[in-house]
Amino acid sequence: MKTLIKLDLDKKPWEQDGLIHNRWHPDLPMVAMVKPDDEFRVECMDWTGGQIGNNDSANDVRDVDLTQVHYLSGPIGVEGAEPGDLMVVDILDVGTLADYQWGFNGLFAKENGGGFLTDHYPEARKSIWDFHGIYTTSRHVPRVKFAGIMHPGLIGCLPSKELLAKWNKREAELIATDPDRVPALALPPNPQSAVMGKLTGDTAKAAAAEAARTVPPRDHGGNCDIKNLTKGSKVYFPVYVKDGGLSMGDLHFSQGDGEITFCGAIEMAGYLDIKVSLIKDGVKKYGISNPIFQPSPLTPTYRDYLIFEGISVDEQGKQHYLDVHVAYRQACLNAIAYLKKFGYSGEQALSILGTAPVEGHISGIVDIPNACATLWLPTEIFDFDLKPNADGPKIYLDGTVDTAKAH
Amino acid sequence: MKTLIKLDLDKKPWEQDGLIHNRWHPDLPMVAMVKPDDEFRVECMDWTGGQIGNNDSANDVRDVDLTQVHYLSGPIGVEGAEPGDLMVVDILDVGTLADYQWGFNGLFAKENGGGFLTDHYPEARKSIWDFHGIYTTSRHVPRVKFAGIMHPGLIGCLPSKELLAKWNKREAELIATDPDRVPALALPPNPQSAVMGKLTGDTAKAAAAEAARTVPPRDHGGNCDIKNLTKGSKVYFPVYVKDGGLSMGDLHFSQGDGEITFCGAIEMAGYLDIKVSLIKDGVKKYGISNPIFQPSPLTPTYRDYLIFEGISVDEQGKQHYLDVHVAYRQACLNAIAYLKKFGYSGEQALSILGTAPVEGHISGIVDIPNACATLWLPTEIFDFDLKPNADGPKIYLDGTVDTAKAH
Amino acid sequence: MKTLIKLDLDKKPWEQDGLIHNRWHPDLPMVAMVKPDDEFRVECMDWTGGQIGNNDSANDVRDVDLTQVHYLSGPIGVEGAEPGDLMVVDILDVGTLADYQWGFNGLFAKENGGGFLTDHYPEARKSIWDFHGIYTTSRHVPRVKFAGIMHPGLIGCLPSKELLAKWNKREAELIATDPDRVPALALPPNPQSAVMGKLTGDTAKAAAAEAARTVPPRDHGGNCDIKNLTKGSKVYFPVYVKDGGLSMGDLHFSQGDGEITFCGAIEMAGYLDIKVSLIKDGVKKYGISNPIFQPSPLTPTYRDYLIFEGISVDEQGKQHYLDVHVAYRQACLNAIAYLKKFGYSGEQALSILGTAPVEGHISGIVDIPNACATLWLPTEIFDFDLKPNADGPKIYLDGTVDTAKAH
Amino acid sequence: MKTLIKLDLDKKPWEQDGLIHNRWHPDLPMVAMVKPDDEFRVECMDWTGGQIGNNDSANDVRDVDLTQVHYLSGPIGVEGAEPGDLMVVDILDVGTLADYQWGFNGLFAKENGGGFLTDHYPEARKSIWDFHGIYTTSRHVPRVKFAGIMHPGLIGCLPSKELLAKWNKREAELIATDPDRVPALALPPNPQSAVMGKLTGDTAKAAAAEAARTVPPRDHGGNCDIKNLTKGSKVYFPVYVKDGGLSMGDLHFSQGDGEITFCGAIEMAGYLDIKVSLIKDGVKKYGISNPIFQPSPLTPTYRDYLIFEGISVDEQGKQHYLDVHVAYRQACLNAIAYLKKFGYSGEQALSILGTAPVEGHISGIVDIPNACATLWLPTEIFDFDLKPNADGPKIYLDGTVDTAKAH
Repeated sequence: MKTLIKLDLDKKPWEQDGLIHNRWHPDLPMVAMVKPDDEFRVECMDWTGGQIGNNDSANDVRDVDLTQVHYLSGPIGVEGAEPGDLMVVDILDVGTLADYQWGFNGLFAKENGGGFLTDHYPEARKSIWDFHGIYTTSRHVPRVKFAGIMHPGLIGCLPSKELLAKWNKREAELIATDPDRVPALALPPNPQSAVMGKLTGDTAKAAAAEAARTVPPRDHGGNCDIKNLTKGSKVYFPVYVKDGGLSMGDLHFSQGDGEITFCGAIEMAGYLDIKVSLIKDGVKKYGISNPIFQPSPLTPTYRDYLIFEGISVDEQGKQHYLDVHVAYRQACLNAIAYLKKFGYSGEQALSILGTAPVEGHISGIVDIPNACATLWLPTEIFDFDLKPNADGPKIYLDGTVDTAKAH
Repeated sequence: MKTLIKLDLDKKPWEQDGLIHNRWHPDLPMVAMVKPDDEFRVECMDWTGGQIGNNDSANDVRDVDLTQVHYLSGPIGVEGAEPGDLMVVDILDVGTLADYQWGFNGLFAKENGGGFLTDHYPEARKSIWDFHGIYTTSRHVPRVKFAGIMHPGLIGCLPSKELLAKWNKREAELIATDPDRVPALALPPNPQSAVMGKLTGDTAKAAAAEAARTVPPRDHGGNCDIKNLTKGSKVYFPVYVKDGGLSMGDLHFSQGDGEITFCGAIEMAGYLDIKVSLIKDGVKKYGISNPIFQPSPLTPTYRDYLIFEGISVDEQGKQHYLDVHVAYRQACLNAIAYLKKFGYSGEQALSILGTAPVEGHISGIVDIPNACATLWLPTEIFDFDLKPNADGPKIYLDGTVDTAKAH
Repeated sequence: MKTLIKLDLDKKPWEQDGLIHNRWHPDLPMVAMVKPDDEFRVECMDWTGGQIGNNDSANDVRDVDLTQVHYLSGPIGVEGAEPGDLMVVDILDVGTLADYQWGFNGLFAKENGGGFLTDHYPEARKSIWDFHGIYTTSRHVPRVKFAGIMHPGLIGCLPSKELLAKWNKREAELIATDPDRVPALALPPNPQSAVMGKLTGDTAKAAAAEAARTVPPRDHGGNCDIKNLTKGSKVYFPVYVKDGGLSMGDLHFSQGDGEITFCGAIEMAGYLDIKVSLIKDGVKKYGISNPIFQPSPLTPTYRDYLIFEGISVDEQGKQHYLDVHVAYRQACLNAIAYLKKFGYSGEQALSILGTAPVEGHISGIVDIPNACATLWLPTEIFDFDLKPNADGPKIYLDGTVDTAKAH
Repeated sequence: MKTLIKLDLDKKPWEQDGLIHNRWHPDLPMVAMVKPDDEFRVECMDWTGGQIGNNDSANDVRDVDLTQVHYLSGPIGVEGAEPGDLMVVDILDVGTLADYQWGFNGLFAKENGGGFLTDHYPEARKSIWDFHGIYTTSRHVPRVKFAGIMHPGLIGCLPSKELLAKWNKREAELIATDPDRVPALALPPNPQSAVMGKLTGDTAKAAAAEAARTVPPRDHGGNCDIKNLTKGSKVYFPVYVKDGGLSMGDLHFSQGDGEITFCGAIEMAGYLDIKVSLIKDGVKKYGISNPIFQPSPLTPTYRDYLIFEGISVDEQGKQHYLDVHVAYRQACLNAIAYLKKFGYSGEQALSILGTAPVEGHISGIVDIPNACATLWLPTEIFDFDLKPNADGPKIYLDGTVDTAKAH
């Protein structure tokens, strides 16, 4: 496998010869061109570009500079790709790097990014996950071990000027409804810390001023954080600019559906082996608005789950109308309450839900006024029996070990 | 297997000797008592109590009386059950009835119930699904066939007075925010068409006036429409009243995650074989707010899916904040647009998404401002190749067959 | 589903209006004719025709009359079927009968049939298995419970005269090599107890004198005892006589690969729902010698197995040449030795291997002189932890309960 | 992951500083010592030590020197291991080497090793398989692609003197029954080409004269060729000598059950990441005769198989008694006959059965006189529809491409 993008992880993202960018903009020059059916390797930094360390303090998570994220490798051009085509991306492999056999999961402080349960767990926290071949364990979250489902959290093609303008407009309108909210409703273009790949000088500055941030998933895919885009899967991306411009990063060793801890999954540096090809005019032929994909035949399999239900009544007892966000939050809180009965701290339980191969299902979405969401927790990842029985739960953790705090 | 509740499907729900009710109220008398570890059969009508016929007109779907639904069998008491216990329900089997080897799927008219995509498909429509052993096909939706995953859409224990009051209060507050909305935001207590089981006379009238409607899933479970509560699964229900009072109904031969057509899955009459037992004081022991469950080792398995992404930008291009409801709607609309390229009508495609073993995942829910939902469509249920290729889609249906319309 | 063959289980096999036969012969008249694409139900007796009772004595297993077996329902003719066609049989459903919610597993006495491990377990033994919806348990084999994978042990089309002659010749030649062996090497035609369906008088007698016994699987399929021919599977059978003549029986609620107890699986009466169609001239088109089939999407799933290896060195330490029979026997004996450490008797362990969803794999068959076979035992069917750990096994059974003996 | 055994693949096996051996003997010195719970990497040559090239001629397969095989890395000692313990080996990962992104599959000539179907396919043939991340394809076998299930074909602990003597005795007795057979019945000790690791001089010579060949699986495991010992599995090996002495090699990218081509699977060089621990006195505690193991949660999943049956009647029509070897051979021949209808040569079909994730099941083994074996061929690995239909098979290969021949 030819390495198309080779990084030096001892250097900063902006010292990588323009192979990395952290904004979406149509003018980003291709860092390499490939032909249809080419196979090649792309190395990626972790999404923060190395801001988080393998240690027992969450200071770095607390102080993370979110204007920097996400650091992506690319864009890569495919000869012959034109707007309206589908770029078919086979994710042939995803792997770790020999000297980076660990990843991190963090809870952002409410003041700095927050997350799905930030009102319940507002402090910065961190857990480090060591890799053991296909498995991972954490010294901060004992008695749980699972096989990874490695995937890029973020992958997609460059937007066109028109698409970029549409993104900026609709997100600005949302922000305008509550511009001072903490955490923010959305992140507008921000030239601070922008890394614009091979663009330099005034062109780079101009692009950075209007370039889209990388946080949300959008029409082109992007930061979908879909755990099933793992090695062996195949994705069909809409092409918006000449040559396509495929970029990728934010690799995860494992993630639960929803990536509810925001920072996020088990975040890591690593590599992707991919193959690209084209379906000419595929967007129109197949009526595509967002990427579609096929899963891999090689994913970790679990059979025995404990499944938690949540409905769209919030923590204060207020009734929401078919709101799956609220319903899934309740399912997650229910799972956390359950795990705490076995001795886990809330933050540890949350870390498990964010990193382990947890499934989040939209179970019912029409039975007014309650949506019903379910969280599927594989019991086989615990080294004790998690299922209910007549004797009640046994406490397996004595509280001496917890996720790392800031101090 | 002893038949604890035996119905006569030639009779109306209210002619079944008080074995059926269609409201939730703590005063509903037990129709039978069982002991822990008992195993028994419960027969159930379809959720409408026989309002929908096996024919080619959607008039009955258009005119359905929703004040009647859902017709439930029970409540069944378990000796020794007390508030705070967990009632453990093993769903040993779910089956069809010899003379009812068919089910229905409907799109309600927007004026009469609507559904998840009612703004796109506002007309009443119906498809009839014939059962062939474990499989089903529809004369209204050609070229698709799948194994059922039979389950009760609705099952749970009677609420206490306090819980009922809480439900009524929070739902009334929601309704008050837009009382004239069509479809309604929620359904308040309504004595019209109430069937109160063994309650009679003034007691029944008084109960019906405050009894909760059966449509939404709530804290006790109820109408969760979770397709995975299939034969072989095990559910832990909170108990709120003496003897528990377990009721069930709304059987489905198959359903997609979300039950997006509202009427709904493949709806059918049938039976449940269940076993009950108790975990004394289990609610507190395990910190339970909503039912939890374990899936079955016996569920239809698919490997090859086409997966559609949706983000929380609506059909008008408006940006919503981490709204999974909107995101899943986009994923569904994307799947429908795709299926139409092969010749299905929009209503047929919608019917497939509502009935087939489609998975709906909450993939990303923290990447502001976009939630990302995915709809997993098993390609193996089609008798043609549904996957994208360079040649573009082939039209396999000529439009001569469609879902049944009202006229 | 139309019931094509309806039995009265209170009557003997030979009192069923000629709907049952227990020998293979081309002259057996069709008991019913169907058209291609017809769907219908066929009821079946258990393979012994009711010789084994739901009780706690193995006397009936010890004294079973094996000249009677297997009692089959059919043959059923398919209009248009001709020799050389493939008869496509969809096994739409397999079910139990309302009044027969139990099955039996037996170890035949070495003097009367024996079995795979008859030198180790020569006594007649019996275990009764109760059905609980999709699950089964046995009062004779505690602490194990599993979902059934119901299937016909025996199904196939009538042989032609030529095929029958070939069978009789090759089996006679084998018997001639050791005619007095106990158990016998093979079973020659035997008119005693022959039930010849709709054939009567001298024709029946003549046919019975040369008809093939039903015990072995042969070119046409027959007694393959393949547990995966379960509800939802599809089989392609070669047709040898006009109209095909499909017969079936020997229903199993569950069985392990190899059916190593001979009597055999969890044997039961029940029904099959099937659909038939034809591929004209399919035998030649596809180069078919034996039936081929496709599995069901609906089979019990297990993830956690304990896998036992066996090699082709026998119990006396003798080396055999790539003999999978010997290797699988060692794998089975290894599993039994292991299960005994937890308190099971050898016969109980054997009963588990014969009935539970155990897989038997031919793992290596070229590494002279040893074949390697593996037996896959799903650990999830036990209600205790079966896996090795540093503390050694715990004894969970105190020996007070065992399989039923003869007396 | 620390690399415990690092090889130089440009050198010969006997030039690797004694890190490699190709015979089993108790006196082989440990090449390294580890502690219980250590995790480490072991590099392995391909089983032939580099005799087979990535080219289009089968000359190397024809001329392979089988006195050399198998080249194993080790033995590795575990501190504290004593005879009677169980050595628990977690196979954390199995991987390819950066410069060796290919493997080979060969049919040995009948005169030089032969194989399972050597009477049908007696010529030397070869196919080269290229790796594409988790997938593999072959330029010699078009239109088939599958995910690998990488595993060591050979792994186990050193035998004791007593065990070695037992092996040599029983195998010699078998050879003596037909000493001139081609291929041989078994392979006696042979000092020619013996590589004895760290043993040197006369000690090495003496050991080589009695050391066991590596071809067969034996009591200690060894060359089991079990495809399910893949990354993520856990094996319990009996310990026979002080420190255990774990050796491993014969890595496969993928293999079908039975490894029916002998040479064999997709053979490759690569690495294993393993973790070792001990269960003291585990052999007795658990009654272990052969290794037992648990499978991985991460294995390629297929749902749609075409399953071929075989019974123990051989190609000449001769009846064998419950002979699974014969039955599985028939199942394989049936599958080959079928595949040829689509245009594959017999050798190509055989190569598919040897390399692809084909399952071989012992389906029935008690129905005298016929064993029934089944071969499960996943249809999803072909890029065309392999299933029978009314139109008959379509020829997808024109015969211009075939496996490589010798010349």
